[in-house]
Amino acid sequence: MKRQFDVLFANNEFKAEAFLDELRGKKPLFVLTIATTETGKISGISAAGKFPEFTDYTPPADAELLHLGKCKCINGVPVTPDGIPTPALITMSALRLADVPVLVCSGGLRIKPQIPFLDVGGNPGRDIRSGNAVDNVQEVIDRATIAGENFAKTADYLVIGESIPGGTTTALGVLSAMGVHAQGRVSSSMPENPHDLKSETVKAGLTSAGESFGSLAANPVRAVSCMGDPMMAAFAGLVIGAASEVPVLMAGGTQMTAILAVINALNSDVLCNLAIGTTRWVVQDSSSDICGIVKEIADVPVLAADLDFAGTKFDGLKAYDRGIVKEGVGAGGASIAAMASTEGAVSRDMLLREIDQNYALLMGLK
Amino acid sequence: MKRQFDVLFANNEFKAEAFLDELRGKKPLFVLTIATTETGKISGISAAGKFPEFTDYTPPADAELLHLGKCKCINGVPVTPDGIPTPALITMSALRLADVPVLVCSGGLRIKPQIPFLDVGGNPGRDIRSGNAVDNVQEVIDRATIAGENFAKTADYLVIGESIPGGTTTALGVLSAMGVHAQGRVSSSMPENPHDLKSETVKAGLTSAGESFGSLAANPVRAVSCMGDPMMAAFAGLVIGAASEVPVLMAGGTQMTAILAVINALNSDVLCNLAIGTTRWVVQDSSSDICGIVKEIADVPVLAADLDFAGTKFDGLKAYDRGIVKEGVGAGGASIAAMASTEGAVSRDMLLREIDQNYALLMGLK
Repeated sequence: MKRQFDVLFANNEFKAEAFLDELRGKKPLFVLTIATTETGKISGISAAGKFPEFTDYTPPADAELLHLGKCKCINGVPVTPDGIPTPALITMSALRLADVPVLVCSGGLRIKPQIPFLDVGGNPGRDIRSGNAVDNVQEVIDRATIAGENFAKTADYLVIGESIPGGTTTALGVLSAMGVHAQGRVSSSMPENPHDLKSETVKAGLTSAGESFGSLAANPVRAVSCMGDPMMAAFAGLVIGAASEVPVLMAGGTQMTAILAVINALNSDVLCNLAIGTTRWVVQDSSSDICGIVKEIADVPVLAADLDFAGTKFDGLKAYDRGIVKEGVGAGGASIAAMASTEGAVSRDMLLREIDQNYALLMGLK
Repeated sequence: MKRQFDVLFANNEFKAEAFLDELRGKKPLFVLTIATTETGKISGISAAGKFPEFTDYTPPADAELLHLGKCKCINGVPVTPDGIPTPALITMSALRLADVPVLVCSGGLRIKPQIPFLDVGGNPGRDIRSGNAVDNVQEVIDRATIAGENFAKTADYLVIGESIPGGTTTALGVLSAMGVHAQGRVSSSMPENPHDLKSETVKAGLTSAGESFGSLAANPVRAVSCMGDPMMAAFAGLVIGAASEVPVLMAGGTQMTAILAVINALNSDVLCNLAIGTTRWVVQDSSSDICGIVKEIADVPVLAADLDFAGTKFDGLKAYDRGIVKEGVGAGGASIAAMASTEGAVSRDMLLREIDQNYALLMGLK
């Protein structure tokens, strides 16, 4: 796989290299898009909270961590049931090393973060098994588009990340409704990817909505309304608004493919200004296939931060190198932006030292 | 009065000239801070709405106008009881001519605007006659400070404006609580400045709060909590966060002096990076004295856009030249920023042509 700095070109190498080149030494704005859903509370779907109710706190806690260096709405930081810390730790470390500004955008939340956040008129999402998951999708897209247009005037490029529990299931929901073959191919933050559970959940949702595989290929707004989550609407609007003016790095794993499908159907003109930025752990994951899904939609570049946690002494971080968690809170994209904006001065080694330090501080370890 | 472009140096000429010079050709971000209060509904206090209940809609409608070029939460645009249109028309025209990005920040609202807006944890304000006007002042300042810090990384400088009905009365409230002699010196959007009504309102508030003139000179957070409005808390936080890094033009009339007093008491280190930007109509107003109040607090520069509406054919705009409305929604500061960022290419004449056009469009006139 070709690379530059500590960034791998995982899909469409030629365009990926050109895209990264365009970011060299430039100033990004990082936008974290957060939301919560009842889908994320389905037992076994998400590792974003030890108990289903905790998933309401994970996105606001991630947002607080980026701004404050600590969480306020929970004690400590979000962890998986096995105690693996949130990837927001990676994002926060990368953004701080490169002094990247952050804004948080809410797609719809039960618990509000105790930091400034952009409201684009969304509500928390329902369970997609209802077939009626998200309110005001068009309105949220429109409002987020306005925000994206204005953000594009303030930065050389945007990096947009997400935090939403259960996000790969809603991604599978939207991809399926839009006719993209993603079954068994979306990623998971858990050690065992619960593909069957995700497929059953999506199947139930499609049935409730009176839809079937591909029936909403030309209606992305209804696909998100029935089968998606509120993060997607806000995220897609931000991209559409910004990418007509500046490059946008969509920072995340297989969830990004659902947003890509939505954007491709709504406004394919902006695709030339887009890339997906993720982590090595996602592109090398044998239980999912981000590049395969991307190719089915539109052959945009996929870049992957070649993170390597072999050198850490902390078990909570070593787990990432075993493929647990993998991505989230724009960790991969933020790492890529930190490397590119500093022209490689921020390396994966420097990043790991910063992550180690921040982890120790936050956990009270030495 | 010295001038450059179509900008007058109304206070501290030397620093005003240096401040404006620093903005030449640079890229601003315009932040509109909006909130509503029950104070604004006191009969005779504000011209921001024909009926008291309308004041809840004026700030969100102003915000919508800046982003959308039209209002959504009301028909038409906000007007005074005499039909004079909102100064947001000036702001919108200036920002569009100079392609300035806009973000809206809510200090606390009853009616939410149908555009993206930043939530910093505030609530609508109560009537200051209760002596208990604003919730969470310290928390709102802290959250807005975070936003200001991040905004400062995205722009060469910030222009921060406000829209809040009854704002000069709450300004007098905070100034009085902090021991600044502002009675009879704050401005008004109405033809007759109701100084007596404002003074009585403030007196009642101070009594209810168990405070007196100057008793909160060293406690700006309590001064805003008792006698201020939610816009002030958000605005002050934004300034404190941004002005440690970049210049900040506080865009407004005599309300800015109350925020200046709060900032002076909270963090006087940032004063060197501040100026007030307003309109000729405010600095030439015989019923108020912005420069006199400023000098009592801290001798920051006051710049004034030398707007001149003599050439318009529309009565609604001619009223501005008779000293009605005068300022609001950061009209003066936005005009100054448009002139400075284009190095004078945007002149007051060009601005008036744009305002005329937009007014005709919005009003369905020819």
